Amino acid sequence: MAHIKLPEGLPGIRGPMAFRPETAKPLNELAEVLLRSENSLSRGERELIATFVSSLNNCFFCQNAHGGIAQHYLQCDLQYIDSIKNDYRSSDLSDKLKTLLSIAASVQNGGKQVTTEQIEKAKSLGATDIEIHDTVLIAAAFCMFNRYVDGLGTWAPQDRNIYVERGPRRAAEGYINFDLYKQ
Amino acid sequence: MAHIKLPEGLPGIRGPMAFRPETAKPLNELAEVLLRSENSLSRGERELIATFVSSLNNCFFCQNAHGGIAQHYLQCDLQYIDSIKNDYRSSDLSDKLKTLLSIAASVQNGGKQVTTEQIEKAKSLGATDIEIHDTVLIAAAFCMFNRYVDGLGTWAPQDRNIYVERGPRRAAEGYINFDLYKQ
Repeated sequence: MAHIKLPEGLPGIRGPMAFRPETAKPLNELAEVLLRSENSLSRGERELIATFVSSLNNCFFCQNAHGGIAQHYLQCDLQYIDSIKNDYRSSDLSDKLKTLLSIAASVQNGGKQVTTEQIEKAKSLGATDIEIHDTVLIAAAFCMFNRYVDGLGTWAPQDRNIYVERGPRRAAEGYINFDLYKQ
Repeated sequence: MAHIKLPEGLPGIRGPMAFRPETAKPLNELAEVLLRSENSLSRGERELIATFVSSLNNCFFCQNAHGGIAQHYLQCDLQYIDSIKNDYRSSDLSDKLKTLLSIAASVQNGGKQVTTEQIEKAKSLGATDIEIHDTVLIAAAFCMFNRYVDGLGTWAPQDRNIYVERGPRRAAEGYINFDLYKQ
């Protein structure tokens, strides 16, 4: 049971968003800009960064909700998403994306953990300033979203396939002007 | 020097905000709703929660910028703000606010660290669901803002009195429609 009385039947962040639409608005606008708007990082890459950070924060709802969306964009299976979470360095991701994931992991650990070496490596592999900025802010934003979801004690469906099935619709509807009550 | 090329002369979060106005917009709207809009928690109390979490995250810019605003609202001195950061339990804050600060500290440590006992205690001391929600989200949001500021390696004036002097104007101008370049 959630720590406060939230509208019933809404999993994860949807309960607090329905409870407090005033804060839901900028939160959703932030997600839309970071994860869906025009960017040289693909939507799949950005959802993967969000999934990875949510996994590091051990947030079941966020890592599965965004994992399902990433899986849809990347046209991969759940095992592939899990392999990135468990050991992205051994994956077939590009060296640039691996370095951005290492920066995201540092941000999750604490802003000061990001090193000049990581940044220089990312730049040498072709990462732009906007890509580095957005990686840092996506990682930082999910340190917020994850704490928001878990800090209020929200519930989440435990069957991971549900998130995979919903991935395509979540990807299509985006983060603004969607129906909070439509599962 | 910041990790990416930011507009010059802007301290802390102002550099990244000028660099990326698309994300600055929802970030500032979130701060405005959480810290300044109508609420049964005073602006001073909310800025104090933000300052406290920024202190736990060791973010020099945020803890001093928001500390300066909190100091203005609470009409106290810098030593008082420091005493709250160092040992709020021994302060003269209300028991309700002390319990909200303990919840904020748990959120900073990780969403799952918030306990039913903390929540029950806050409710028994009169905290409403909105106040608990906003405390959790302010704490979570500053885990984002702090990581954003430090993860990009931004600079900040080291003289703490500068933030105290700017507190009243920062409080008056708010978080939206202010001039990013006006120090």
